[in-house]
Amino acid sequence: MQQLGKAELKRLRALKTEHGREQHRLFVAEGYRLVRAALEASAAVTRIVMTPEFAHSSAGKELSQLAQGDKGIPLTIVEERVFRDIAATTHAQGVAAIVRMPGWPSRAPWQSGLTVALYRVRDPGNLGTIWRSAAWFGADRLVLSKGCVDPHNPKAVRATMGGIFYVPCEPVEDLANWLAAARAAGYRILAADVRGESDRWPADAKEAVLVAGGETEPLDPSVLRVVETTLRIPCWGAGDSLNVAMAVSILLDEWRRSQGDQLRPTGPSQGRGEPE
Amino acid sequence: MQQLGKAELKRLRALKTEHGREQHRLFVAEGYRLVRAALEASAAVTRIVMTPEFAHSSAGKELSQLAQGDKGIPLTIVEERVFRDIAATTHAQGVAAIVRMPGWPSRAPWQSGLTVALYRVRDPGNLGTIWRSAAWFGADRLVLSKGCVDPHNPKAVRATMGGIFYVPCEPVEDLANWLAAARAAGYRILAADVRGESDRWPADAKEAVLVAGGETEPLDPSVLRVVETTLRIPCWGAGDSLNVAMAVSILLDEWRRSQGDQLRPTGPSQGRGEPE
Repeated sequence: MQQLGKAELKRLRALKTEHGREQHRLFVAEGYRLVRAALEASAAVTRIVMTPEFAHSSAGKELSQLAQGDKGIPLTIVEERVFRDIAATTHAQGVAAIVRMPGWPSRAPWQSGLTVALYRVRDPGNLGTIWRSAAWFGADRLVLSKGCVDPHNPKAVRATMGGIFYVPCEPVEDLANWLAAARAAGYRILAADVRGESDRWPADAKEAVLVAGGETEPLDPSVLRVVETTLRIPCWGAGDSLNVAMAVSILLDEWRRSQGDQLRPTGPSQGRGEPE
Repeated sequence: MQQLGKAELKRLRALKTEHGREQHRLFVAEGYRLVRAALEASAAVTRIVMTPEFAHSSAGKELSQLAQGDKGIPLTIVEERVFRDIAATTHAQGVAAIVRMPGWPSRAPWQSGLTVALYRVRDPGNLGTIWRSAAWFGADRLVLSKGCVDPHNPKAVRATMGGIFYVPCEPVEDLANWLAAARAAGYRILAADVRGESDRWPADAKEAVLVAGGETEPLDPSVLRVVETTLRIPCWGAGDSLNVAMAVSILLDEWRRSQGDQLRPTGPSQGRGEPE
Protein backbone atom coordinates (compact mmCIF):
# COMPACT_ATOMS: atom_id res chain seq x y z
CA MET A 1 0.00 0.00 0.00
CA GLN A 2 1.26 3.41 -0.89
CA GLN A 3 0.41 6.79 0.58
CA LEU A 4 -0.61 9.77 -1.52
CA GLY A 5 1.82 12.62 -0.96
CA LYS A 6 0.59 16.20 -0.94
CA ALA A 7 2.06 16.96 -4.34
CA GLU A 8 0.61 13.79 -5.85
CA LEU A 9 -2.83 14.55 -4.44
CA LYS A 10 -2.67 18.04 -5.92
CA ARG A 11 -1.75 16.54 -9.28
CA LEU A 12 -4.66 14.08 -9.19
CA ARG A 13 -7.08 16.81 -8.20
CA ALA A 14 -5.95 18.83 -11.20
CA LEU A 15 -7.14 16.05 -13.51
CA LYS A 16 -10.71 17.25 -13.11
CA THR A 17 -10.04 20.04 -15.59
CA GLU A 18 -9.09 19.69 -19.24
CA HIS A 19 -6.13 21.98 -18.63
CA GLY A 20 -4.85 19.82 -15.77
CA ARG A 21 -5.25 16.65 -17.82
CA GLU A 22 -3.34 18.15 -20.73
CA GLN A 23 -0.61 19.43 -18.44
CA HIS A 24 0.00 16.11 -16.73
CA ARG A 25 -0.96 13.90 -19.71
CA LEU A 26 -3.08 11.82 -17.35
CA PHE A 27 -6.79 11.18 -16.95
CA VAL A 28 -9.06 9.38 -14.49
CA ALA A 29 -11.17 6.31 -15.26
CA GLU A 30 -13.73 5.76 -12.50
CA GLY A 31 -15.74 2.78 -11.38
CA TYR A 32 -15.28 -0.97 -11.21
CA ARG A 33 -16.17 -1.88 -14.80
CA LEU A 34 -14.00 0.82 -16.29
CA VAL A 35 -10.97 0.07 -14.13
CA ARG A 36 -11.29 -3.61 -14.95
CA ALA A 37 -11.57 -2.77 -18.66
CA ALA A 38 -8.41 -0.62 -18.46
CA LEU A 39 -6.48 -3.46 -16.84
CA GLU A 40 -7.79 -6.08 -19.24
CA ALA A 41 -6.95 -3.92 -22.24
CA SER A 42 -3.46 -3.28 -20.83
CA ALA A 43 -3.99 0.48 -20.92
CA ALA A 44 -1.19 2.60 -19.43
CA VAL A 45 -2.55 2.62 -15.87
CA THR A 46 -0.10 4.43 -13.60
CA ARG A 47 -1.95 3.99 -10.34
CA ILE A 48 -5.17 2.63 -8.88
CA VAL A 49 -6.89 4.48 -6.06
CA MET A 50 -9.47 2.86 -3.79
CA THR A 51 -11.43 3.69 -0.67
CA PRO A 52 -10.90 1.32 2.29
CA GLU A 53 -14.46 0.06 1.87
CA PHE A 54 -13.96 -0.80 -1.80
CA ALA A 55 -10.57 -2.39 -1.09
CA HIS A 56 -12.24 -4.85 1.28
CA SER A 57 -15.01 -5.82 -1.14
CA SER A 58 -14.63 -8.83 -3.41
CA ALA A 59 -14.53 -6.47 -6.41
CA GLY A 60 -11.71 -4.58 -4.69
CA LYS A 61 -9.75 -7.76 -4.13
CA GLU A 62 -10.27 -8.85 -7.73
CA LEU A 63 -8.97 -5.53 -9.09
CA SER A 64 -6.02 -5.47 -6.67
CA GLN A 65 -4.98 -8.88 -7.90
CA LEU A 66 -5.35 -7.90 -11.54
CA ALA A 67 -3.33 -4.73 -10.98
CA GLN A 68 -0.57 -6.14 -8.86
CA GLY A 69 -0.27 -9.64 -10.28
CA ASP A 70 2.01 -9.39 -13.27
CA LYS A 71 1.53 -5.71 -13.94
CA GLY A 72 2.87 -4.28 -10.70
CA ILE A 73 0.65 -1.23 -10.84
CA PRO A 74 0.79 0.83 -7.62
CA LEU A 75 -2.36 0.67 -5.54
CA THR A 76 -3.26 3.43 -3.11
CA ILE A 77 -5.96 3.31 -0.44
CA VAL A 78 -7.27 6.76 0.43
CA GLU A 79 -9.97 7.97 2.78
CA GLU A 80 -13.47 8.39 1.34
CA ARG A 81 -13.05 12.17 1.65
CA VAL A 82 -9.83 12.20 -0.36
CA PHE A 83 -11.33 9.88 -2.95
CA ARG A 84 -14.19 12.28 -3.52
CA ASP A 85 -11.58 14.94 -4.21
CA ILE A 86 -10.18 12.90 -7.07
CA ALA A 87 -13.34 11.36 -8.51
CA ALA A 88 -15.54 13.60 -10.62
CA THR A 89 -18.72 11.58 -10.39
CA THR A 90 -20.83 11.34 -7.29
CA HIS A 91 -21.24 7.60 -7.50
CA ALA A 92 -17.73 6.47 -8.32
CA GLN A 93 -17.99 3.23 -6.36
CA GLY A 94 -14.73 3.98 -4.58
CA VAL A 95 -12.28 2.96 -7.27
CA ALA A 96 -10.48 4.88 -9.99
CA ALA A 97 -7.53 4.29 -12.32
CA ILE A 98 -5.09 7.03 -13.25
CA VAL A 99 -4.26 6.45 -16.90
CA ARG A 100 -1.50 7.91 -19.04
CA MET A 101 -2.80 9.74 -22.12
CA PRO A 102 -4.11 9.14 -24.57
CA GLY A 103 -5.40 5.89 -23.07
CA TRP A 104 -6.31 4.42 -26.42
CA PRO A 105 -4.12 2.34 -28.75
CA SER A 106 -2.54 3.94 -31.79
CA ARG A 107 -4.68 1.70 -33.94
CA ALA A 108 -7.67 -0.54 -33.26
CA PRO A 109 -6.80 -4.19 -32.64
CA TRP A 110 -8.93 -5.15 -35.65
CA GLN A 111 -9.22 -3.75 -39.17
CA SER A 112 -12.70 -3.04 -40.40
CA GLY A 113 -12.32 -0.03 -42.69
CA LEU A 114 -14.84 2.08 -40.81
CA THR A 115 -14.16 5.44 -39.16
CA VAL A 116 -16.73 7.41 -37.16
CA ALA A 117 -16.27 11.19 -37.46
CA LEU A 118 -18.16 13.42 -35.05
CA TYR A 119 -18.99 17.06 -35.71
CA ARG A 120 -19.50 19.24 -32.63
CA VAL A 121 -20.80 16.54 -30.31
CA ARG A 122 -20.70 18.46 -27.06
CA ASP A 123 -22.45 16.11 -24.67
CA PRO A 124 -19.89 13.87 -22.89
CA GLY A 125 -22.45 11.10 -22.39
CA ASN A 126 -23.19 11.02 -26.12
CA LEU A 127 -19.50 10.97 -27.08
CA GLY A 128 -18.76 8.20 -24.59
CA THR A 129 -21.73 6.09 -25.63
CA ILE A 130 -20.79 6.42 -29.30
CA TRP A 131 -17.29 5.29 -28.37
CA ARG A 132 -18.69 2.25 -26.58
CA SER A 133 -20.78 1.35 -29.64
CA ALA A 134 -17.84 2.01 -31.98
CA ALA A 135 -15.79 -0.51 -29.98
CA TRP A 136 -18.64 -3.03 -29.90
CA PHE A 137 -19.15 -2.93 -33.66
CA GLY A 138 -15.42 -2.79 -34.35
CA ALA A 139 -15.03 0.65 -35.92
CA ASP A 140 -11.35 1.43 -36.52
CA ARG A 141 -11.25 4.90 -34.98
CA LEU A 142 -13.10 8.03 -33.97
CA VAL A 143 -12.33 11.44 -35.42
CA LEU A 144 -13.47 14.55 -33.55
CA SER A 145 -14.02 17.99 -35.06
CA LYS A 146 -13.25 21.19 -33.19
CA GLY A 147 -16.13 21.89 -30.84
CA CYS A 148 -16.50 18.29 -29.66
CA VAL A 149 -16.25 17.66 -25.93
CA ASP A 150 -12.80 16.74 -24.57
CA PRO A 151 -12.48 12.97 -25.03
CA HIS A 152 -10.86 12.68 -21.58
CA ASN A 153 -13.79 14.36 -19.85
CA PRO A 154 -14.64 12.03 -16.92
CA LYS A 155 -18.26 11.58 -18.00
CA ALA A 156 -17.20 10.76 -21.53
CA VAL A 157 -14.56 8.30 -20.32
CA ARG A 158 -17.07 6.65 -18.03
CA ALA A 159 -19.73 6.32 -20.72
CA THR A 160 -17.26 4.52 -23.02
CA MET A 161 -17.34 1.61 -20.51
CA GLY A 162 -13.92 0.62 -21.71
CA GLY A 163 -14.35 1.40 -25.42
CA ILE A 164 -11.76 4.16 -24.91
CA PHE A 165 -9.13 1.46 -24.40
CA TYR A 166 -9.80 -0.17 -27.77
CA VAL A 167 -10.71 2.50 -30.32
CA PRO A 168 -8.24 5.32 -31.08
CA CYS A 169 -9.63 8.84 -31.12
CA GLU A 170 -8.13 11.61 -33.20
CA PRO A 171 -9.07 15.27 -32.83
CA VAL A 172 -8.67 17.12 -36.14
CA GLU A 173 -8.20 20.80 -36.85
CA ASP A 174 -10.52 21.03 -39.83
CA LEU A 175 -13.00 18.20 -40.31
CA ALA A 176 -13.95 19.18 -43.87
CA ASN A 177 -10.30 19.08 -44.96
CA TRP A 178 -9.74 15.82 -43.17
CA LEU A 179 -12.78 14.26 -44.87
CA ALA A 180 -11.66 15.55 -48.28
CA ALA A 181 -8.30 13.85 -47.78
CA ALA A 182 -10.02 10.62 -46.69
CA ARG A 183 -12.23 10.76 -49.76
CA ALA A 184 -9.22 11.31 -52.01
CA ALA A 185 -7.66 8.26 -50.37
CA GLY A 186 -10.61 6.12 -51.44
CA TYR A 187 -12.92 6.26 -48.40
CA ARG A 188 -16.65 6.65 -48.98
CA ILE A 189 -17.93 9.61 -46.94
CA LEU A 190 -21.41 8.95 -45.50
CA ALA A 191 -23.35 11.11 -43.07
CA ALA A 192 -26.24 10.52 -40.69
CA ASP A 193 -28.91 13.07 -41.55
CA VAL A 194 -32.53 13.14 -40.43
CA ARG A 195 -33.52 14.19 -43.95
CA GLY A 196 -31.02 11.92 -45.65
CA GLU A 197 -31.47 10.52 -49.13
CA SER A 198 -30.92 6.83 -48.47
CA ASP A 199 -32.17 4.53 -45.75
CA ARG A 200 -29.77 1.69 -46.48
CA TRP A 201 -26.05 1.48 -45.92
CA PRO A 202 -24.51 1.31 -49.41
CA ALA A 203 -23.48 -2.34 -49.81
CA ASP A 204 -20.29 -1.39 -51.65
CA ALA A 205 -19.06 1.05 -48.96
CA LYS A 206 -16.23 -1.02 -47.49
CA GLU A 207 -13.73 1.66 -46.59
CA ALA A 208 -15.96 4.38 -45.23
CA VAL A 209 -16.29 7.31 -42.84
CA LEU A 210 -19.61 7.80 -41.05
CA VAL A 211 -20.09 11.47 -40.12
CA ALA A 212 -22.60 12.52 -37.46
CA GLY A 213 -23.33 15.90 -35.94
CA GLY A 214 -24.30 17.17 -32.51
CA GLU A 215 -27.85 17.50 -31.35
CA THR A 216 -28.63 21.11 -31.98
CA GLU A 217 -26.38 21.98 -34.86
CA PRO A 218 -26.73 20.72 -38.43
CA LEU A 219 -23.58 19.64 -40.27
CA ASP A 220 -21.63 22.59 -41.59
CA PRO A 221 -22.04 23.19 -45.37
CA SER A 222 -18.26 22.77 -45.77
CA VAL A 223 -18.61 19.28 -44.25
CA LEU A 224 -21.74 18.42 -46.24
CA ARG A 225 -19.95 19.30 -49.48
CA VAL A 226 -17.50 16.43 -48.90
CA VAL A 227 -20.26 13.95 -48.01
CA GLU A 228 -21.27 11.57 -50.79
CA THR A 229 -24.40 10.00 -49.35
CA THR A 230 -26.63 11.04 -46.46
CA LEU A 231 -28.29 8.22 -44.54
CA ARG A 232 -31.56 8.54 -42.72
CA ILE A 233 -33.30 6.34 -40.20
CA PRO A 234 -36.97 6.49 -41.14
CA CYS A 235 -39.43 7.84 -38.57
CA TRP A 236 -42.49 5.63 -38.07
CA GLY A 237 -44.03 7.51 -35.18
CA ALA A 238 -43.25 10.98 -33.87
CA GLY A 239 -40.26 13.20 -33.17
CA ASP A 240 -37.87 15.69 -34.69
CA SER A 241 -34.82 13.44 -34.57
CA LEU A 242 -33.11 10.58 -32.80
CA ASN A 243 -30.40 11.13 -30.21
CA VAL A 244 -27.04 11.23 -32.02
CA ALA A 245 -25.66 8.25 -30.09
CA MET A 246 -28.75 6.19 -31.05
CA ALA A 247 -28.45 7.22 -34.70
CA VAL A 248 -24.75 6.30 -34.87
CA SER A 249 -25.30 2.97 -33.08
CA ILE A 250 -28.18 2.04 -35.39
CA LEU A 251 -26.11 2.88 -38.46
CA LEU A 252 -23.16 0.87 -37.13
CA ASP A 253 -25.51 -2.10 -36.74
CA GLU A 254 -26.78 -1.57 -40.30
CA TRP A 255 -23.21 -1.27 -41.56
CA ARG A 256 -22.33 -4.63 -40.00
CA ARG A 257 -25.40 -6.33 -41.41
CA SER A 258 -24.69 -4.90 -44.85
CA GLN A 259 -21.14 -6.24 -44.80
CA GLY A 260 -22.06 -9.84 -44.06
CA ASP A 261 -19.39 -11.98 -42.46
CA GLN A 262 -16.15 -10.28 -43.37
CA LEU A 263 -15.24 -10.23 -39.71
CA ARG A 264 -16.52 -12.81 -37.32
CA PRO A 265 -18.38 -11.44 -34.27
CA THR A 266 -16.15 -11.75 -31.23
CA GLY A 267 -18.93 -11.95 -28.67
CA PRO A 268 -18.99 -10.23 -25.30
CA SER A 269 -15.73 -10.16 -23.36
CA GLN A 270 -13.86 -11.81 -26.17
CA GLY A 271 -12.87 -8.77 -28.17
CA ARG A 272 -9.49 -8.53 -26.56
CA GLY A 273 -7.54 -7.27 -29.47
CA GLU A 274 -7.19 -10.33 -31.67
CA PRO A 275 -7.66 -9.29 -35.27
CA GLU A 276 -9.64 -11.90 -37.17
CA MET B 1 -48.66 38.19 -18.10
CA GLN B 2 -49.37 36.56 -14.78
CA GLN B 3 -47.52 36.75 -11.51
CA LEU B 4 -46.51 33.69 -9.52
CA GLY B 5 -48.09 33.81 -6.07
CA LYS B 6 -46.19 32.51 -3.08
CA ALA B 7 -48.33 29.37 -2.82
CA GLU B 8 -48.00 28.65 -6.53
CA LEU B 9 -44.22 29.08 -6.39
CA LYS B 10 -44.06 26.66 -3.48
CA ARG B 11 -46.11 24.16 -5.47
CA LEU B 12 -43.85 24.44 -8.48
CA ARG B 13 -40.73 24.05 -6.36
CA ALA B 14 -42.20 20.85 -4.92
CA LEU B 15 -42.26 19.31 -8.41
CA LYS B 16 -38.53 18.63 -8.15
CA THR B 17 -39.27 15.60 -6.01
CA GLU B 18 -41.20 12.48 -6.98
CA HIS B 19 -43.35 12.95 -3.90
CA GLY B 20 -44.24 16.52 -4.87
CA ARG B 21 -45.04 15.51 -8.42
CA GLU B 22 -47.32 12.70 -7.25
CA GLN B 23 -49.02 14.97 -4.75
CA HIS B 24 -49.82 17.71 -7.24
CA ARG B 25 -50.14 15.43 -10.30
CA LEU B 26 -47.94 17.85 -12.22
CA PHE B 27 -44.44 17.70 -13.72
CA VAL B 28 -42.02 20.09 -15.38
CA ALA B 29 -40.85 19.89 -19.01
CA GLU B 30 -37.83 22.12 -19.51
CA GLY B 31 -36.23 23.69 -22.54
CA TYR B 32 -37.37 25.06 -25.88
CA ARG B 33 -37.66 21.83 -27.84
CA LEU B 34 -39.56 20.05 -25.12
CA VAL B 35 -42.00 22.89 -24.48
CA ARG B 36 -42.64 23.19 -28.19
CA ALA B 37 -43.19 19.42 -28.40
CA ALA B 38 -45.68 19.57 -25.51
CA LEU B 39 -47.66 22.34 -27.23
CA GLU B 40 -47.59 20.64 -30.62
CA ALA B 41 -48.73 17.34 -29.14
CA SER B 42 -51.52 19.14 -27.25
CA ALA B 43 -50.30 17.82 -23.92
CA ALA B 44 -52.11 19.10 -20.82
CA VAL B 45 -49.88 22.13 -20.27
CA THR B 46 -51.25 24.19 -17.39
CA ARG B 47 -48.71 26.99 -17.48
CA ILE B 48 -45.57 28.13 -19.24
CA VAL B 49 -42.82 29.86 -17.25
CA MET B 50 -40.11 31.96 -18.89
CA THR B 51 -37.27 34.22 -17.86
CA PRO B 52 -37.47 37.80 -19.19
CA GLU B 53 -34.46 37.11 -21.44
CA PHE B 54 -36.07 34.05 -23.01
CA ALA B 55 -39.41 35.86 -23.40
CA HIS B 56 -37.71 38.50 -25.55
CA SER B 57 -35.95 36.00 -27.81
CA SER B 58 -37.50 34.87 -31.07
CA ALA B 59 -37.92 31.38 -29.59
CA GLY B 60 -39.75 32.97 -26.66
CA LYS B 61 -42.09 34.85 -28.94
CA GLU B 62 -42.76 31.71 -30.99
CA LEU B 63 -43.68 29.69 -27.90
CA SER B 64 -45.80 32.51 -26.44
CA GLN B 65 -47.80 32.61 -29.64
CA LEU B 66 -48.21 28.84 -29.75
CA ALA B 67 -49.33 28.78 -26.11
CA GLN B 68 -51.66 31.72 -26.15
CA GLY B 69 -53.03 31.52 -29.70
CA ASP B 70 -55.93 29.12 -29.58
CA LYS B 71 -54.90 27.28 -26.46
CA GLY B 72 -55.02 30.14 -23.97
CA ILE B 73 -52.34 28.63 -21.76
CA PRO B 74 -51.21 31.04 -19.00
CA LEU B 75 -47.72 32.40 -19.47
CA THR B 76 -45.68 33.65 -16.53
CA ILE B 77 -42.46 35.64 -16.70
CA VAL B 78 -40.28 35.13 -13.63
CA GLU B 79 -36.89 36.41 -12.64
CA GLU B 80 -33.89 34.25 -13.54
CA ARG B 81 -33.44 33.45 -9.85
CA VAL B 82 -37.02 32.22 -9.45
CA PHE B 83 -36.75 30.22 -12.66
CA ARG B 84 -33.72 28.39 -11.33
CA ASP B 85 -35.84 27.45 -8.33
CA ILE B 86 -38.31 25.68 -10.57
CA ALA B 87 -36.02 24.18 -13.21
CA ALA B 88 -34.06 21.11 -12.22
CA THR B 89 -31.39 21.29 -14.91
CA THR B 90 -28.63 23.84 -14.92
CA HIS B 91 -29.04 24.70 -18.58
CA ALA B 92 -32.77 25.00 -18.87
CA GLN B 93 -32.68 27.77 -21.47
CA GLY B 94 -35.14 29.85 -19.47
CA VAL B 95 -38.37 28.13 -20.44
CA ALA B 96 -40.41 25.36 -18.84
CA ALA B 97 -43.92 23.97 -19.17
CA ILE B 98 -45.91 22.74 -16.19
CA VAL B 99 -47.79 19.68 -17.42
CA ARG B 100 -50.68 17.79 -15.85
CA MET B 101 -49.88 14.12 -15.27
CA PRO B 102 -49.41 11.73 -16.79
CA GLY B 103 -48.42 13.88 -19.79
CA TRP B 104 -48.78 11.03 -22.24
CA PRO B 105 -51.86 9.95 -24.17
CA SER B 106 -53.86 6.95 -23.00
CA ARG B 107 -52.83 5.19 -26.19
CA ALA B 108 -50.29 5.93 -28.90
CA PRO B 109 -51.69 7.77 -31.92
CA TRP B 110 -50.67 4.83 -34.11
CA GLN B 111 -51.06 1.08 -33.79
CA SER B 112 -47.96 -0.98 -34.38
CA GLY B 113 -48.34 -3.96 -32.06
CA LEU B 114 -45.03 -3.34 -30.30
CA THR B 115 -44.56 -2.71 -26.57
CA VAL B 116 -41.21 -1.95 -24.93
CA ALA B 117 -40.98 -3.31 -21.37
CA LEU B 118 -38.10 -2.12 -19.18
CA TYR B 119 -36.76 -4.01 -16.20
CA ARG B 120 -35.01 -1.92 -13.54
CA VAL B 121 -33.72 0.81 -15.82
CA ARG B 122 -32.56 3.28 -13.21
CA ASP B 123 -30.75 5.89 -15.26
CA PRO B 124 -33.14 8.71 -16.21
CA GLY B 125 -31.14 9.54 -19.36
CA ASN B 126 -31.45 5.95 -20.55
CA LEU B 127 -35.19 5.80 -19.85
CA GLY B 128 -35.78 9.12 -21.62
CA THR B 129 -33.70 8.20 -24.63
CA ILE B 130 -35.48 4.86 -24.98
CA TRP B 131 -38.77 6.76 -24.86
CA ARG B 132 -37.58 9.09 -27.61
CA SER B 133 -36.60 6.11 -29.78
CA ALA B 134 -39.87 4.30 -28.96
CA ALA B 135 -41.77 7.34 -30.26
CA TRP B 136 -39.56 7.63 -33.35
CA PHE B 137 -40.06 4.00 -34.33
CA GLY B 138 -43.73 4.03 -33.38
CA ALA B 139 -43.84 1.62 -30.45
CA ASP B 140 -47.31 1.53 -28.88
CA ARG B 141 -46.28 1.91 -25.27
CA LEU B 142 -43.66 1.54 -22.59
CA VAL B 143 -44.09 -0.70 -19.57
CA LEU B 144 -41.89 -0.14 -16.51
CA SER B 145 -41.09 -2.70 -13.84
CA LYS B 146 -40.68 -1.80 -10.18
CA GLY B 147 -37.20 -0.37 -9.72
CA CYS B 148 -37.25 1.73 -12.88
CA VAL B 149 -36.61 5.46 -12.47
CA ASP B 150 -39.69 7.69 -12.04
CA PRO B 151 -40.88 8.47 -15.60
CA HIS B 152 -41.55 12.09 -14.57
CA ASN B 153 -37.99 12.61 -13.36
CA PRO B 154 -36.89 15.90 -15.01
CA LYS B 155 -33.84 14.32 -16.68
CA ALA B 156 -35.94 11.48 -18.04
CA VAL B 157 -38.60 13.89 -19.30
CA ARG B 158 -35.94 16.04 -20.94
CA ALA B 159 -34.22 13.12 -22.65
CA THR B 160 -37.53 12.00 -24.23
CA MET B 161 -37.35 15.20 -26.33
CA GLY B 162 -41.12 15.07 -26.65
CA GLY B 163 -41.54 11.31 -26.97
CA ILE B 164 -43.29 11.44 -23.58
CA PHE B 165 -46.18 13.26 -25.25
CA TYR B 166 -46.77 10.48 -27.78
CA VAL B 167 -46.05 7.13 -26.18
CA PRO B 168 -48.01 6.02 -23.08
CA CYS B 169 -46.00 4.64 -20.19
CA GLU B 170 -47.41 2.15 -17.73
CA PRO B 171 -45.70 1.18 -14.47
CA VAL B 172 -46.60 -2.39 -13.49
CA GLU B 173 -46.49 -4.07 -10.11
CA ASP B 174 -45.05 -7.38 -11.25
CA LEU B 175 -43.42 -7.46 -14.67
CA ALA B 176 -43.26 -11.26 -14.90
CA ASN B 177 -47.01 -11.51 -14.28
CA TRP B 178 -47.73 -8.75 -16.73
CA LEU B 179 -45.63 -10.46 -19.41
CA ALA B 180 -47.33 -13.79 -18.76
CA ALA B 181 -50.70 -12.14 -19.34
CA ALA B 182 -49.44 -10.48 -22.53
CA ARG B 183 -48.14 -13.83 -23.75
CA ALA B 184 -51.46 -15.48 -22.99
CA ALA B 185 -53.13 -12.71 -25.01
CA GLY B 186 -51.05 -13.64 -28.05
CA TYR B 187 -48.04 -11.33 -27.78
CA ARG B 188 -44.59 -12.74 -28.55
CA ILE B 189 -42.25 -11.98 -25.65
CA LEU B 190 -38.72 -11.12 -26.83
CA ALA B 191 -35.81 -9.91 -24.73
CA ALA B 192 -32.58 -8.09 -25.47
CA ASP B 193 -29.77 -10.19 -24.03
CA VAL B 194 -26.06 -9.91 -24.63
CA ARG B 195 -25.86 -13.71 -24.81
CA GLY B 196 -29.11 -14.08 -26.70
CA GLU B 197 -29.90 -16.99 -28.96
CA SER B 198 -30.96 -15.13 -32.11
CA ASP B 199 -29.52 -12.15 -33.90
CA ARG B 200 -32.54 -11.49 -36.08
CA TRP B 201 -35.95 -10.15 -35.14
CA PRO B 202 -38.37 -13.05 -35.75
CA ALA B 203 -40.17 -12.09 -38.96
CA ASP B 204 -43.49 -13.46 -37.69
CA ALA B 205 -43.44 -11.45 -34.42
CA LYS B 206 -46.13 -8.89 -35.22
CA GLU B 207 -47.71 -8.39 -31.81
CA ALA B 208 -44.70 -8.39 -29.55
CA VAL B 209 -43.16 -7.14 -26.33
CA LEU B 210 -39.45 -6.26 -26.31
CA VAL B 211 -38.02 -6.63 -22.79
CA ALA B 212 -34.74 -4.97 -21.83
CA GLY B 213 -32.97 -4.73 -18.51
CA GLY B 214 -30.89 -2.11 -16.73
CA GLU B 215 -27.15 -1.85 -17.07
CA THR B 216 -25.89 -3.70 -14.09
CA GLU B 217 -28.58 -6.21 -13.40
CA PRO B 218 -29.47 -9.23 -15.54
CA LEU B 219 -33.15 -9.97 -16.17
CA ASP B 220 -34.73 -11.72 -13.22
CA PRO B 221 -35.25 -15.49 -13.71
CA SER B 222 -39.00 -14.97 -13.19
CA VAL B 223 -38.96 -12.57 -16.15
CA LEU B 224 -36.72 -14.78 -18.30
CA ARG B 225 -39.09 -17.71 -17.81
CA VAL B 226 -41.82 -15.81 -19.67
CA VAL B 227 -39.49 -14.76 -22.49
CA GLU B 228 -39.75 -16.84 -25.67
CA THR B 229 -36.72 -15.63 -27.62
CA THR B 230 -33.64 -13.70 -26.52
CA LEU B 231 -32.14 -11.37 -29.12
CA ARG B 232 -28.49 -10.44 -29.25
CA ILE B 233 -26.63 -7.76 -31.14
CA PRO B 234 -23.39 -9.42 -32.22
CA CYS B 235 -20.12 -7.92 -30.97
CA TRP B 236 -17.53 -7.39 -33.72
CA GLY B 237 -14.93 -5.60 -31.65
CA ALA B 238 -14.65 -5.28 -27.89
CA GLY B 239 -16.82 -4.71 -24.86
CA ASP B 240 -19.01 -6.41 -22.29
CA SER B 241 -22.29 -5.00 -23.53
CA LEU B 242 -23.98 -2.13 -25.30
CA ASN B 243 -25.72 0.67 -23.42
CA VAL B 244 -29.37 -0.39 -22.86
CA ALA B 245 -30.74 2.59 -24.79
CA MET B 246 -28.50 1.71 -27.76
CA ALA B 247 -29.55 -1.93 -27.64
CA VAL B 248 -33.26 -1.07 -27.56
CA SER B 249 -32.91 1.50 -30.35
CA ILE B 250 -31.02 -0.94 -32.56
CA LEU B 251 -33.63 -3.65 -31.98
CA LEU B 252 -36.44 -1.19 -32.72
CA ASP B 253 -34.73 -0.39 -36.03
CA GLU B 254 -34.37 -4.11 -36.77
CA TRP B 255 -38.02 -4.68 -35.85
CA ARG B 256 -39.10 -2.02 -38.34
CA ARG B 257 -36.91 -3.42 -41.09
CA SER B 258 -38.22 -6.93 -40.44
CA GLN B 259 -41.82 -5.78 -40.73
CA GLY B 260 -41.49 -4.17 -44.14
CA ASP B 261 -43.98 -1.48 -45.02
CA GLN B 262 -46.93 -2.21 -42.82
CA LEU B 263 -46.80 1.35 -41.58
CA ARG B 264 -45.48 4.13 -43.74
CA PRO B 265 -42.64 6.16 -42.20
CA THR B 266 -44.01 9.52 -41.13
CA GLY B 267 -40.75 11.44 -41.44
CA PRO B 268 -39.48 14.01 -38.96
CA SER B 269 -42.02 16.42 -37.52
CA GLN B 270 -44.87 14.69 -39.25
CA GLY B 271 -45.77 12.10 -36.68
CA ARG B 272 -48.52 14.17 -35.18
CA GLY B 273 -50.89 11.46 -34.23
CA GLU B 274 -52.34 10.34 -37.52
CA PRO B 275 -52.64 6.57 -37.50
CA GLU B 276 -51.74 5.19 -40.91
